[in-house]
Amino acid sequence: MTVQTSPTIAHDRMANAIRALSMDAVEAANSGHPGMPMGMADVATVLYSKFLKFDAAQPGWADRDRFVLSAGHGSMLLYSLLYLTGYPEMTIEQIRNFRQLGSMTAGHPEYGHAPGIETTTGPLGQGIATSVGFALGERILNARFGNDLVDHYTYVVAGDGCLMEGISQEAITLAGHLKLSKLIVLFDDNGISIDGPVDLTTSEDQLARFKAAGWDVQAIDGHDPKAIEAAIAKARASDTPSLIACKTIIGYGAPKKQGSAATHGSPLGAEEIAGARAKLGWDFPPFEIPEDVLSAWRAVGKRGETARLAWQERVDDLGSDIQEELDRVLAGTLPAGFDQAVEAFKKAVVEEKPKIATRMSSQRVIDALAPVLPELIGGSADLTGSNNTKAKEAAIVKAGDYRGSYIHYGIREHGMAAAMNGLALHGGVIPFGGTFMVFTDYCRPAIRLSALMGLRVIYIMTHDSIGLGEDGPTHQPVEHLAALRAIPNLNVFRPADTVETAEAWQIALQSTGTPSIISLTRQALPTLRTTHASENLTAKGGYVLAEAEGKRQVTLIGTGSEVSLAMEARDKLKAEGIGAAVVSLPCWELFDAQPESYRAQVLGDCPRIAVEAALGFGWERYTGAGGCFVGMTGFGASAPAPALYKHFGITADAVAAAAKARI
Amino acid sequence: MTVQTSPTIAHDRMANAIRALSMDAVEAANSGHPGMPMGMADVATVLYSKFLKFDAAQPGWADRDRFVLSAGHGSMLLYSLLYLTGYPEMTIEQIRNFRQLGSMTAGHPEYGHAPGIETTTGPLGQGIATSVGFALGERILNARFGNDLVDHYTYVVAGDGCLMEGISQEAITLAGHLKLSKLIVLFDDNGISIDGPVDLTTSEDQLARFKAAGWDVQAIDGHDPKAIEAAIAKARASDTPSLIACKTIIGYGAPKKQGSAATHGSPLGAEEIAGARAKLGWDFPPFEIPEDVLSAWRAVGKRGETARLAWQERVDDLGSDIQEELDRVLAGTLPAGFDQAVEAFKKAVVEEKPKIATRMSSQRVIDALAPVLPELIGGSADLTGSNNTKAKEAAIVKAGDYRGSYIHYGIREHGMAAAMNGLALHGGVIPFGGTFMVFTDYCRPAIRLSALMGLRVIYIMTHDSIGLGEDGPTHQPVEHLAALRAIPNLNVFRPADTVETAEAWQIALQSTGTPSIISLTRQALPTLRTTHASENLTAKGGYVLAEAEGKRQVTLIGTGSEVSLAMEARDKLKAEGIGAAVVSLPCWELFDAQPESYRAQVLGDCPRIAVEAALGFGWERYTGAGGCFVGMTGFGASAPAPALYKHFGITADAVAAAAKARI
Repeated sequence: MTVQTSPTIAHDRMANAIRALSMDAVEAANSGHPGMPMGMADVATVLYSKFLKFDAAQPGWADRDRFVLSAGHGSMLLYSLLYLTGYPEMTIEQIRNFRQLGSMTAGHPEYGHAPGIETTTGPLGQGIATSVGFALGERILNARFGNDLVDHYTYVVAGDGCLMEGISQEAITLAGHLKLSKLIVLFDDNGISIDGPVDLTTSEDQLARFKAAGWDVQAIDGHDPKAIEAAIAKARASDTPSLIACKTIIGYGAPKKQGSAATHGSPLGAEEIAGARAKLGWDFPPFEIPEDVLSAWRAVGKRGETARLAWQERVDDLGSDIQEELDRVLAGTLPAGFDQAVEAFKKAVVEEKPKIATRMSSQRVIDALAPVLPELIGGSADLTGSNNTKAKEAAIVKAGDYRGSYIHYGIREHGMAAAMNGLALHGGVIPFGGTFMVFTDYCRPAIRLSALMGLRVIYIMTHDSIGLGEDGPTHQPVEHLAALRAIPNLNVFRPADTVETAEAWQIALQSTGTPSIISLTRQALPTLRTTHASENLTAKGGYVLAEAEGKRQVTLIGTGSEVSLAMEARDKLKAEGIGAAVVSLPCWELFDAQPESYRAQVLGDCPRIAVEAALGFGWERYTGAGGCFVGMTGFGASAPAPALYKHFGITADAVAAAAKARI
Repeated sequence: MTVQTSPTIAHDRMANAIRALSMDAVEAANSGHPGMPMGMADVATVLYSKFLKFDAAQPGWADRDRFVLSAGHGSMLLYSLLYLTGYPEMTIEQIRNFRQLGSMTAGHPEYGHAPGIETTTGPLGQGIATSVGFALGERILNARFGNDLVDHYTYVVAGDGCLMEGISQEAITLAGHLKLSKLIVLFDDNGISIDGPVDLTTSEDQLARFKAAGWDVQAIDGHDPKAIEAAIAKARASDTPSLIACKTIIGYGAPKKQGSAATHGSPLGAEEIAGARAKLGWDFPPFEIPEDVLSAWRAVGKRGETARLAWQERVDDLGSDIQEELDRVLAGTLPAGFDQAVEAFKKAVVEEKPKIATRMSSQRVIDALAPVLPELIGGSADLTGSNNTKAKEAAIVKAGDYRGSYIHYGIREHGMAAAMNGLALHGGVIPFGGTFMVFTDYCRPAIRLSALMGLRVIYIMTHDSIGLGEDGPTHQPVEHLAALRAIPNLNVFRPADTVETAEAWQIALQSTGTPSIISLTRQALPTLRTTHASENLTAKGGYVLAEAEGKRQVTLIGTGSEVSLAMEARDKLKAEGIGAAVVSLPCWELFDAQPESYRAQVLGDCPRIAVEAALGFGWERYTGAGGCFVGMTGFGASAPAPALYKHFGITADAVAAAAKARI
């Protein structure tokens, strides 16, 4: 291996710099995964030095190639590359502080910790599935802004773990179907997982599998820089996504442990590290990179500057309208007409007072906003007509024609959610997608990453209770609202009518650092907000929808479909001379963020009865001592929705009776 | 199609009976999916009349073939077959009451609703993945009891939806790896999903995909009974699992709608049904099956009686020991020595007082119980050494050699969970399997089905908090305890030491109708239960571990790793003359099932401070007014565990301070 990667420095020495930093950082932390970075150092060196379009000094350059380390446990590979190529902030001190509190160099790459970390990875399979969103975002923007402005690759390093996870199948079949030819997966084919050789657990032919999904496939020696270079070049020329299976030796360089699971997730130990230094001919102290190697790497980091400046010139040469629009969508700011569109919509709703399912309300919101928000990219996991996610005028994104704004994600909830993360991370688009509320379980790991990364991803989750009726308990969410409310930095909206649905959408679109779940009904609901308010009341999370007539003796708290039921109960109580206020609580997270005084005023100090067609888990927070909850106590059943509400005792009478029993 | 399936009745008429019942039942319910049953009627007719080993009168026959309708929305296919072949309880009244409250004929097949429903399906992909467990259970029992007693097939009907879900990839690669040759998947290759033709959403070559996973594959005309028969015969002879792609016309027989998405999920309508009757030559009123067709079907239902009786004779001829053991494991009862083994273990622990991680405690429990519980089948999703799930003596289950009791599930959490459901449903084995607690998200849809079906599946979920340390927020569960506690009929255990771990295991094994999550630490914990109690205190869900010395002024409530922290806080408070009791609350579900008086006595009426290294979501139930929660408020971070506990303020000092602020 004497190939010259840099004009002056042999490929090996550059790759060994990655190996040394990785094994030394893991050793210092006494924790981490040296095997993968040492195994993939050759591939990464060729990719960065020969192909990757980036300018380390300007990590935010919109048209950079994206590099995604799907095998996130090998984080030292990425941190080494960021340090070596000279990304700002990624100092040798950060490398020394690998896996320590407050460092940028967390155990797994964390989006937002340092420039150059394109996405959070670690939960296996997420990186490759998120990459489909990156590659798709690139094609969609390319179709809108042209080759001069948007034209980059997405490279992914994935291991056996990523490829064994089910989500990877959803990702690769979606990518294959959409012919995302600029997506290139470098498979670290080292034959080792945590339990040992992969033949303990799998026998699949990965090349044949990817081929079956419409990918171009190659298999190479992952330690042969010429072969790596040729394979990447070929993959770039393919008109389908590409897999390059790189046969590597895990822990390459460790004299006794290389090629074994012992290098996977533990420090090598002082003796083995000394042996590796000898074997690799790397006679420098820990964390020290010799000047010639470092400057060769730093030159790699500057390689893209010319391309970036040329790109910037092309941007500057655009007409001001296009440039403004490009800047706007890349910055993720909403257009001037956005608030007016919401306002006009709310006004019209208050006039019409439709009695429709909130999934239909959401459809109307989408139809109203799509014309002013071209960056809105909708989709559904094969439930388009049920989730009501497709704007009337939206064209379909297809293989080879990416001008549309609607994606048929197929029956791939998890893949959809991860792709939406990738779309949001890529920038220039705002993704939303739908499935049934119960199937949030199928995409939960990706929803968690939306929240952890703080991405504006909008999940349209319909059929949100036993109100879906006959499909039965497998399709009826009962615990899902609680399970989603439990996730930090995730706004869970359950709007009560069309006005609240519009308000939830407005907040979701404005929340650049928080994903949103919008939980919607299958069944029709009356319009409850019958007078127009410019103020977005949903933004407070909860508010008094109807104060008691006379003295408030009880507070009825509902969300979504049960707010109208609480209103009925209020009428029944009024008929008996009991003053009941109705609080609509569409978003717990936003309500909890209000001042204590506001919350106390809304909830009142008389008994509180909460009603929600779901389990009561968590509701004690609001009902408190002396309150109670009317809702589900277990799984649902198969029957028409009205029969189920009656069967499970979620009725206005039950709410009124609960109130009377407590005042 | 004039093939004779019955000696006297043409295949077509038998298949048309399924079609008629399906379209009529969906029409009567005004809800459901007629397209799939009508499309797959020919395949099902051949399978049931020529191959399926069953005796409708004895649906519980242990050596029956299993039939799994993975495409559960086509439930009328199964209900029709159960009615036609004469399963007890599945009357024509049940068919007429399709999708109505209290009927056996729920929207999707619900395990336990009627004999002959082998598993709950509907959430796509679950059926095929559960079937891997059925097929694996069959091989494991076969290896133990021989061909004479255990020798049956598992047939699965799966549609495009099932095959697009990621979980199906985990399932088919696991089945291929283990060469589960008696697993046969009949793919309803109708080219239609809800959004329309499948080419809207996918382009994959399913045959090549399955082949890459080591399956035998065939493609046939799914309306040609001879081809169906030949294909199933060939699949049965294969030494690998088999896929038969059956090209079918969805809604076969509906004159205008067949072959289109319009038949998928909606009633056909009166006019189209009349047209179908004419086209199929079926001139009988709704729900009426002509006597000759019904008796031909009933003969099919009796076809297996002889084989069953012969099997019973072979069982009766066994030596009494083997017969008793077979009966015992099939009945799912624990052996005589079980309670003594737990008792002996607890006694020894109290003597030794180990300070070990509860994942290690669990390892010791497994090692202690495995010798008395041969039906225990362990496994891990590639974290064997971390989850500590492999009993010392356990042999590995491998392709062609199924004598072992440990399964390397690979990096397939979701597939593992579904396979465990299948193992539990199959009977004769008790499955447990491990991964990291945070990855309960990856298998959540299957965990939900364990709970919905009421299966004894034991999930060993380790690394259950920020205590896992350096791997960081992607690997640190914070919301997972809450999200799991929110699932009905699921016992979530978080034991505080080795004794509680043994008690949790004991309850989990005794809970034949409830799955269990056992949430375990990575970090070492002291033994807190230092005096032996024969009583299983964990069975009460919560109990006073240490009463206050003097008057109780505050109750400290903890779970798992934070109970020892509460004990430290108790000491600190004692030093200041404050009487604090410590309550260990290892299982909320069991505690909530105790009498109100017991719960009140345990929790006390002084202020309550809860501590758990997780989010506080749901804790208001116990802390109540005037109480507080010490724990996480958001995602974790990457650092050594002790640094994280300090950083997030989860310390004995913080608990003591919170107590002092409230008394």
